[in-house]
Amino acid sequence: MTPVITAFESSPDRGRGLARDMRVRWALEEVGAAYEVRLVSFRAMKEAAHKAIHPFGQIPTYEEGDLALFETGAIVLHIAERHAGLLPDDANARARTIMWMFAAVNTIEPPIVEWSAAWLMERDKPWYEERLPMLQARIDARIGDLSRRLGEAEWLDGAFSAADVMMVTVLRRAENSGLLERYPNLVAYIARGEARPAYRRAFADQYAVFADGQAAG
Amino acid sequence: MTPVITAFESSPDRGRGLARDMRVRWALEEVGAAYEVRLVSFRAMKEAAHKAIHPFGQIPTYEEGDLALFETGAIVLHIAERHAGLLPDDANARARTIMWMFAAVNTIEPPIVEWSAAWLMERDKPWYEERLPMLQARIDARIGDLSRRLGEAEWLDGAFSAADVMMVTVLRRAENSGLLERYPNLVAYIARGEARPAYRRAFADQYAVFADGQAAG
Repeated sequence: MTPVITAFESSPDRGRGLARDMRVRWALEEVGAAYEVRLVSFRAMKEAAHKAIHPFGQIPTYEEGDLALFETGAIVLHIAERHAGLLPDDANARARTIMWMFAAVNTIEPPIVEWSAAWLMERDKPWYEERLPMLQARIDARIGDLSRRLGEAEWLDGAFSAADVMMVTVLRRAENSGLLERYPNLVAYIARGEARPAYRRAFADQYAVFADGQAAG
Repeated sequence: MTPVITAFESSPDRGRGLARDMRVRWALEEVGAAYEVRLVSFRAMKEAAHKAIHPFGQIPTYEEGDLALFETGAIVLHIAERHAGLLPDDANARARTIMWMFAAVNTIEPPIVEWSAAWLMERDKPWYEERLPMLQARIDARIGDLSRRLGEAEWLDGAFSAADVMMVTVLRRAENSGLLERYPNLVAYIARGEARPAYRRAFADQYAVFADGQAAG
């Protein structure tokens, strides 16, 4: 049964691949699983039909027969559990891989989202400039710790895994912050992820949605 | 092998059980697993010995033989996978349980943490009052959607599970916001969690750390 995922009909980042469907596309490409994409508009995301699948009215979702999932961490873990290649066999290494998947969305991503939201919603407010160093410091504290833990390793815990799919895509959301450059090992880590053939295929597919929208517009 | 978790030596919430060790204690009590607790000071959390286990310098951690974990979602899932009672047998229901665990820490918790941090760090700033409605609206949007999805159900997806351990403890962090009261079904949901014998044992154990500290002080 071919799974169906949802993605933005109109790319808010003009095809840079920062939307959360990128993680799911990448995981599916890594394991060589076919999938279909249903594009949804910003309006349709908030309507009852979509919220029946994703109660918080976001993308992506993942539908496969009777199963409907949201939350990229859960979707990527589901894919990793049903196909070879994204989870180690050793039980302890598997638990650590899941740990890093949670760390990506619960420890690294929130300060990046907070900083992005401030730029989006508050950059014209009189307090924006004064608050910005605090928001940047919150990101820096987390990515600095991540950099020290990663050290010279190629991936987060041994071989490439679902943890790296999550962490690389989360870190990319901070690319415009100017903070990643302080940590050359993180920059190289992201580049290693982006160089993988499966990443490139996923990126091209999400970019095509943007390019098609431009052509149609 | 008895697992060892870490918790705050000095309870920042005066024993209200809002620290993240509560989730892990509750899960361990639900499955009837013995565990030990190592208390750590705020200073020790940031030192090399602790950061070797938890690279972001926080609590709780979970050590069991050769395995060392951080991230409460991963720890609770690890416990749920190795003991009966917190994960359904059906594969789809299991995937949805993991989905709700990610939703707790990735969708519900971040706006609560953002609001808490603003109170802690910025309540004396001139912009605090003007920003507060926005921070409250972010929490409200998420818990409103959660309330509509929960409806009249007892737990998030069928029987009580690890998802409810995560979601109840995350929601409790918004107790002082005055926002939960808008959703009587969420208030009742939290109360159902708090009424479970395992929750009560976990709560009493974390409260004892605070009470002992008071007595020693």
